[in-house]
Amino acid sequence: MIPFAAPVRDTRFVLEELLEHRSLSLPGFEEVSPELVEAVLEEAARLANEVWAPLNASGDRQGCTRRDDGSVSVPDGFAEAYRAYAEGGWNGIGVSEALGGQGLPEVVASAVQEMLHGANMALGLCPMLTAGAIEALAHHGSDEQQATYLAKLVEGTWSGTMNLTEPQAGSDLSKVRTRAVPQEDGSYRLFGQKIYITWGEHDAAENIIHLVLARTPDAPVGNKGISLFLVPKYVVKKYVVNEPQVNQDGSLGERNDVICAAIEHKLGIHGSPTCTLSFGENGGAIGYLVGEEGRGLNHMFTMMNEARHKVGVQGIGVAERACQQAFAYALERTQGRSPRSGRNDCTISDHLDVRRMLLSMRARTDALRALALYCAAQLDVARHAADAADRTAAQARVDVLIPVVKAFSTDQAVEIASLGIQVHGGMGYIEETGAAQLLRDARIAPIYEGTNGIQALDLAGRKLQRDGGVAMAALIDEVEGTARALSATPALATLGEGLAAGAADLTAALATLLEQGSDPTRGADAVQAYATPFLSLAGHVLCAWQMGRAALAASAAIDAGSDDPGQPDHFYTAKQQAADWAIRQWLPEGRAQLAVIEAGMASLAAFDPSAH
Amino acid sequence: MIPFAAPVRDTRFVLEELLEHRSLSLPGFEEVSPELVEAVLEEAARLANEVWAPLNASGDRQGCTRRDDGSVSVPDGFAEAYRAYAEGGWNGIGVSEALGGQGLPEVVASAVQEMLHGANMALGLCPMLTAGAIEALAHHGSDEQQATYLAKLVEGTWSGTMNLTEPQAGSDLSKVRTRAVPQEDGSYRLFGQKIYITWGEHDAAENIIHLVLARTPDAPVGNKGISLFLVPKYVVKKYVVNEPQVNQDGSLGERNDVICAAIEHKLGIHGSPTCTLSFGENGGAIGYLVGEEGRGLNHMFTMMNEARHKVGVQGIGVAERACQQAFAYALERTQGRSPRSGRNDCTISDHLDVRRMLLSMRARTDALRALALYCAAQLDVARHAADAADRTAAQARVDVLIPVVKAFSTDQAVEIASLGIQVHGGMGYIEETGAAQLLRDARIAPIYEGTNGIQALDLAGRKLQRDGGVAMAALIDEVEGTARALSATPALATLGEGLAAGAADLTAALATLLEQGSDPTRGADAVQAYATPFLSLAGHVLCAWQMGRAALAASAAIDAGSDDPGQPDHFYTAKQQAADWAIRQWLPEGRAQLAVIEAGMASLAAFDPSAH
Repeated sequence: MIPFAAPVRDTRFVLEELLEHRSLSLPGFEEVSPELVEAVLEEAARLANEVWAPLNASGDRQGCTRRDDGSVSVPDGFAEAYRAYAEGGWNGIGVSEALGGQGLPEVVASAVQEMLHGANMALGLCPMLTAGAIEALAHHGSDEQQATYLAKLVEGTWSGTMNLTEPQAGSDLSKVRTRAVPQEDGSYRLFGQKIYITWGEHDAAENIIHLVLARTPDAPVGNKGISLFLVPKYVVKKYVVNEPQVNQDGSLGERNDVICAAIEHKLGIHGSPTCTLSFGENGGAIGYLVGEEGRGLNHMFTMMNEARHKVGVQGIGVAERACQQAFAYALERTQGRSPRSGRNDCTISDHLDVRRMLLSMRARTDALRALALYCAAQLDVARHAADAADRTAAQARVDVLIPVVKAFSTDQAVEIASLGIQVHGGMGYIEETGAAQLLRDARIAPIYEGTNGIQALDLAGRKLQRDGGVAMAALIDEVEGTARALSATPALATLGEGLAAGAADLTAALATLLEQGSDPTRGADAVQAYATPFLSLAGHVLCAWQMGRAALAASAAIDAGSDDPGQPDHFYTAKQQAADWAIRQWLPEGRAQLAVIEAGMASLAAFDPSAH
Repeated sequence: MIPFAAPVRDTRFVLEELLEHRSLSLPGFEEVSPELVEAVLEEAARLANEVWAPLNASGDRQGCTRRDDGSVSVPDGFAEAYRAYAEGGWNGIGVSEALGGQGLPEVVASAVQEMLHGANMALGLCPMLTAGAIEALAHHGSDEQQATYLAKLVEGTWSGTMNLTEPQAGSDLSKVRTRAVPQEDGSYRLFGQKIYITWGEHDAAENIIHLVLARTPDAPVGNKGISLFLVPKYVVKKYVVNEPQVNQDGSLGERNDVICAAIEHKLGIHGSPTCTLSFGENGGAIGYLVGEEGRGLNHMFTMMNEARHKVGVQGIGVAERACQQAFAYALERTQGRSPRSGRNDCTISDHLDVRRMLLSMRARTDALRALALYCAAQLDVARHAADAADRTAAQARVDVLIPVVKAFSTDQAVEIASLGIQVHGGMGYIEETGAAQLLRDARIAPIYEGTNGIQALDLAGRKLQRDGGVAMAALIDEVEGTARALSATPALATLGEGLAAGAADLTAALATLLEQGSDPTRGADAVQAYATPFLSLAGHVLCAWQMGRAALAASAAIDAGSDDPGQPDHFYTAKQQAADWAIRQWLPEGRAQLAVIEAGMASLAAFDPSAH
């Protein structure tokens, strides 16, 4: 098994040279220096490499165990590794200091998340879900709820879950049936069953705070009847704000009436317990309304938008690990004769067909990382910029980027992990090698937190139609600017041409989508038909844009004579080669999606799957 | 679990309407009528659906078990299902009657293989390997070897294996180290270890005939020192030709010195035992030279070329099953509101984004099947045509088609199986659903029998360079002919345009590959750099060609008023929609590979994977 090495150097390249640490100049980050960020990355890498990564394969083999009493144990070492993470303060690095966090920019938090998911995706899911619960409570929880739950969630002593799906309510949450019955004391009793609850029950945290979508009695059918509830695994003796004499210790009380009825047997992420939770089999699970009644879906979407970014980042972490394994294997495995050296015992990395796979894996991972961190940096602006107009513009950009980061990164991660298997040949198919686990693990990411089809519809329908494509067009302007800068650099002019062509294709696709999507009778169909090809095109163009920026930065570094001390000339040269590949050999595949859109939707709309 | 239904109707469409049963008019098939073929397909479907398919999931869960004595048992029911297959005479359907087979055309045998692999790929591997052994012995075995082994292999009482790979010798078989020491009686004793031996040890057949690459003493290093040996699990009391009094019973003698040292823990095909075989740990495994000394690799390639076609067919079988599962789920699962009907409980097949996935799965599976069966029909011509020039031309066509069928079908099968998971949403990630198994199973197919990279090199290097692209150009001529026929049909004219553009791209790519590939200094690198993009382009264009032919056939059938009695209008209409999607929405992705080739190989050749 190849050890994992968190990609500190590549991450610093993005933060320092592509994003120029702009988040650090925002109000609220005055204390955060580049040196501090560097130290954070190094320390996170140590945790990822030394504590989390060594448990990745053993956790996959062992999986989780549910006992007859409904309790679930996670794989050996996971609880300790999670505690090392919580005790290191990592759970709160992106959370504001006011809520007990470290108050670092989202762009830094995202970089750390990628390292941890690359080390151990199954374990990384626990804090990912907790982050969603923190987000929901920070935005919609009452003062009392914040006082009672937030600190423990932020420090990671307790974990959080998102309880959305029911057997009949998957992508369509309007079908939720779980009931929440109001009690005289203002609390509720919940009854129902939720499925696919990630880290829904486990023994790695002292308490679990479930955030649950449920329907109050007499609530209207559909989305507007759904509210959000907080259901703790152990009822908490609450802090009551301004009344410290009442139940003031925040200690754990009785076990609540929510139990794990089953855990799923999944393709991957075996170390992450995916639970069916039963609420109220013994009188009702005690729950508390979060935010407004009937606004549960809205409140949940607060969590989901950021969770979607995190899933994209997770995919990138797994892609990075797949790269590392494939490179290490290809550089060590000797087989065949190199046409260049004529040597009879060359490593397979000398064969250009293998090198093509390696460069494709590396360039795509680099590009996805740069785009995801760009999006995180825009999130920082949206939250912290002094000027309201800047915040609004950044949020609009974030809104269109998040579905791309989620869907495109995870689709690509599956392909990259699959290519990683291919580089290994027969060894890749043997579980002991570890390459197969990465494909099995990665394969969930295009499905959860909204399938990638749902992401595409969110982009092509809601996000683009509501502002008439303004935010996307602004992004395309940036792409064109980078294309012009490349064209103005003689050595990079062909990249400028390629990127400009990609931008033009995306502009044309956007126009088609906006025009046909706004048609009163056929618009909804057009959005459905073109959503996925459009997202793929956008993902390719935006990733190529980031690689164009990387080529410019690398070129500047080379011209300035600066280079990575340990690897003279190679780091930046490799970045240029990756950019060349991404723009000239990867982008054309994405551009083909314009033809897909222009071919229209007639045969798709006419196709009757039941007739076949 | 959705039951499997072997695709009899779709297969008949290809055999009858696209291939017009031309194999049946070849010498040697006088007795084979269309009605007989139809009956064979129906009977094979019964075996696949009722006997093999029900064991697919249970075999995956149970896997194979190796005992301390080295014996291996396959999953419950597999031995009985294999015997039902052998007793039904299925093992010999494509083998000539002279060798004890049924003497049906390869195109029919391939269609049956696809059904069986769709039903149970892990079980299907046993006869697939036996077929290779039959092929090798039929071509290169002595009369005595044929008399002793062939009948039992053809009837399936014994199974066969291919022993190529060693830890240091994977894609590069020149590195084989297994030794074969000649004995005074003309036999050999073999010593060494082989890995990844499919069905290398099991309890479903009475004997196992291993075909083993090994090196004789003092043999030259490299390819020319390797010979092919036959090593039976149980030594056979031989039939001696013309001396029936000597050991004439052909019964099984002593257990040979070849044992299973381990079985692999794999991503998929758990029902297929993948063995490490140790030869000669107790004095030497008795083996017999097959064919000429030093010609082992050549003899093995006889088996491999056809085995590669079978692996492509296997991928198509799995893709077909993935289609069936996805369609069944999408037609039953209700979720969301249909923009067209406005109904609040539509099936997900009503959402065009889901329908896009379904149509893409169906169209690609149809196209791959048509191409693989076209290739099989050309194999029939190559073997049976009366005219030597026809045989030669067909063989040349087969030679360029086989790497495409193997690599393109299996790459696409992985994507189709992955898309099948996506259609299921969260359910797809749960092993019980069965969709995940199809991805796990399919993932081996791009690796074994020569990785898909090796296939691409075989095509772009050996096959195209040796005849200067003549056979490929002849295929492109056929594509252009179909494009003209489409263009001449007003309703299909846009398909004609699309296909013609694809053919032009393939012609351009071929010219580039031939020109740069023949460069004395850079040629080998160019072949390596362009091989995979070229194969992908060729696969897309040739599949689109088949779909163009399907559109013409469907159009003719609709015009003639004939249609599938049970499904008025829909069968042929769906074929037209699939053809429209394939040519207008899938082919553009393939055409992007021309841009990949035209971008050149400079950054790939310069990229240093060790520097990153």
